[in-house]
Amino acid sequence: MPTELSAEDLLDLARGAAFLGTGGGGDPYIGRLMAEAAMADHGPITLLGLDELKDGDFVIPTAMMGAPTVMIEKIPRGDEAVQSLRTLERHLGRRADATMPIECGGINSTIPLVVGALLGLPVVDADGMGRAFPELQMETFHVYGVAGTPMAITNEYGDTAIVTTRDNRTMEWLARGITIRMGGASLIAEYAMDGATAKRASIPGTISLGVRIGRCLREARARHADPFEALIETLGETHYEYGRVIFAGKVTDVFRRTTEGFAKGNARIESAAGEVLELTFQNEHLVARVDGEVRAIVPDLICVLAAETAEPITTEAIRYGQRVQVMAVSTPPIMRTPEALAVFGPAAFGLDEEFRPIEELASERVATP
Amino acid sequence: MPTELSAEDLLDLARGAAFLGTGGGGDPYIGRLMAEAAMADHGPITLLGLDELKDGDFVIPTAMMGAPTVMIEKIPRGDEAVQSLRTLERHLGRRADATMPIECGGINSTIPLVVGALLGLPVVDADGMGRAFPELQMETFHVYGVAGTPMAITNEYGDTAIVTTRDNRTMEWLARGITIRMGGASLIAEYAMDGATAKRASIPGTISLGVRIGRCLREARARHADPFEALIETLGETHYEYGRVIFAGKVTDVFRRTTEGFAKGNARIESAAGEVLELTFQNEHLVARVDGEVRAIVPDLICVLAAETAEPITTEAIRYGQRVQVMAVSTPPIMRTPEALAVFGPAAFGLDEEFRPIEELASERVATP
Repeated sequence: MPTELSAEDLLDLARGAAFLGTGGGGDPYIGRLMAEAAMADHGPITLLGLDELKDGDFVIPTAMMGAPTVMIEKIPRGDEAVQSLRTLERHLGRRADATMPIECGGINSTIPLVVGALLGLPVVDADGMGRAFPELQMETFHVYGVAGTPMAITNEYGDTAIVTTRDNRTMEWLARGITIRMGGASLIAEYAMDGATAKRASIPGTISLGVRIGRCLREARARHADPFEALIETLGETHYEYGRVIFAGKVTDVFRRTTEGFAKGNARIESAAGEVLELTFQNEHLVARVDGEVRAIVPDLICVLAAETAEPITTEAIRYGQRVQVMAVSTPPIMRTPEALAVFGPAAFGLDEEFRPIEELASERVATP
Repeated sequence: MPTELSAEDLLDLARGAAFLGTGGGGDPYIGRLMAEAAMADHGPITLLGLDELKDGDFVIPTAMMGAPTVMIEKIPRGDEAVQSLRTLERHLGRRADATMPIECGGINSTIPLVVGALLGLPVVDADGMGRAFPELQMETFHVYGVAGTPMAITNEYGDTAIVTTRDNRTMEWLARGITIRMGGASLIAEYAMDGATAKRASIPGTISLGVRIGRCLREARARHADPFEALIETLGETHYEYGRVIFAGKVTDVFRRTTEGFAKGNARIESAAGEVLELTFQNEHLVARVDGEVRAIVPDLICVLAAETAEPITTEAIRYGQRVQVMAVSTPPIMRTPEALAVFGPAAFGLDEEFRPIEELASERVATP
């Protein structure tokens, strides 16, 4: 049954999406304000379960593209994603029955909600990343054979580009170039597909998962419970089954550059016992190592959370002196197939290590003290 | 009356277009081979005078975009410009009655001929630069109010982008970014317009002028006449009225970089008397100075020609040791209006000097020995 999102749901979603962003995806705060404003003006947003989509429905996902470091300074006007969707509709000669996130982590959990509110279009409760990833081909849509193009790109001046490419990697390459020239952030519509394809190639329920994670944190704080324990318990009831705190300490160093359209860098966290966890990120956290030993690795989630409140900290906001706990979370099976790992596993980011599930990495550490 | 281009015309045009390229525009040799091959397979190319266009005719100019240094290594497959034109036609929902050069200098004099031959489409004998210029807004079409977008961009893999922008400078900015990501060269269709607009905003007769310049050089060599004198006489009969050799000497230094999608740099030419002419170029020659004193300046043509044969030398081919004569040529009045100079006069290239017509600069030097 379709559900309507409340303003409180949006608050929860913003926090949950920041968690699922694993440090990236852009600050959902801005997206939440945009969705709130759109809801206030145009009425509620309808969330449609993936199983409620008809096979013949036409879905056009919408998103923001760019470096999170840019997004927090270059705030969208509000209707750019609508223009991207409309541009793509005109190009394809077909109206969308629904929009959908490509990415449930960060600001991109909320951009389709803005579109949904402004156009009265239902938003499919699913996405193509199951977290945040920095590149457009790093989507289960791509993994499972959906063409990303034709895609539409729009900026705050109404400039548009419709890109059609031989493959989804070239789409990423050209769209990234255009986004950089648009000032480092743009709004896009891509991976247009029918309902049957969406059901086959998406990670289900990830908007409501974001809401649930946010609500779990809010409620745990309200009742003065340990938010980390509450989170691990809640995740245990979802297809992101396994969560674990892998490190606690103080941020002692951050190196971050906005380069090639990404926020790239690394951060060091030192524990009270003097152990050092090193995080490497490209918009999102990719790998967490202690003394060169992998403790968690992409595509599993690596989430840096404020030590007391479990508030997610993004890679553009992480800074010296913050007391944090680092949580790692298992991703659903659809994101861990060999095809999926070929697209967004460690090698896709130039990392030498093989993917190893967090459950396995963590159990080893329990076994060998 | 429409005329048909012969293979000999193409040979002449390639040389004449290199002359009109003022050092840039890409090597017309490649374009000539492409047009020849297309003619051999698909029959002759029809040239249509600007005055033969009907006001309601729909014209889509086609061109290559990129750095000349890239173009000589990354040779087009042949039908990319056709794909750009077709992509733009589909987007606009209207078929073209003719194509046309945006630029009569360099390879872009011949790209529309390839399209004309492959599609059996007439080519309008006119262009929007009257020479070569490095950027897409540096066209009389832009000067006289024609929107450059929607434009289409294609590469040799069939990747396409349709760009629609708030203004023509933004078109250049985004299209340049896409072209860089396509490897530094692309094929485009832009400034779609009706016949009435083409008549108002184009420089007439510039393809046949290219043919005429090439023929003049060929014939002068055949009869062992001075090709420079022959050229000056021929130009005197056109709206490029005034030509003059402003320097003769040996190339003693060249600094050239392919940067931001352009071939930028400068060259020094030393005369037998020890005087030094310094040329500054961005794809095309922009200014010629002796001891800091301007001898010729954009948009007037500055053409570096081999000392004996008057063979045009492009900025990517100019090198140490070449014996050259530098000729400057006046541009037609439509290219020297205040509106035109605001778009492609010296200030548009960051030069401090005001535009001064070559006739004036040259007469001063005669007056004050």
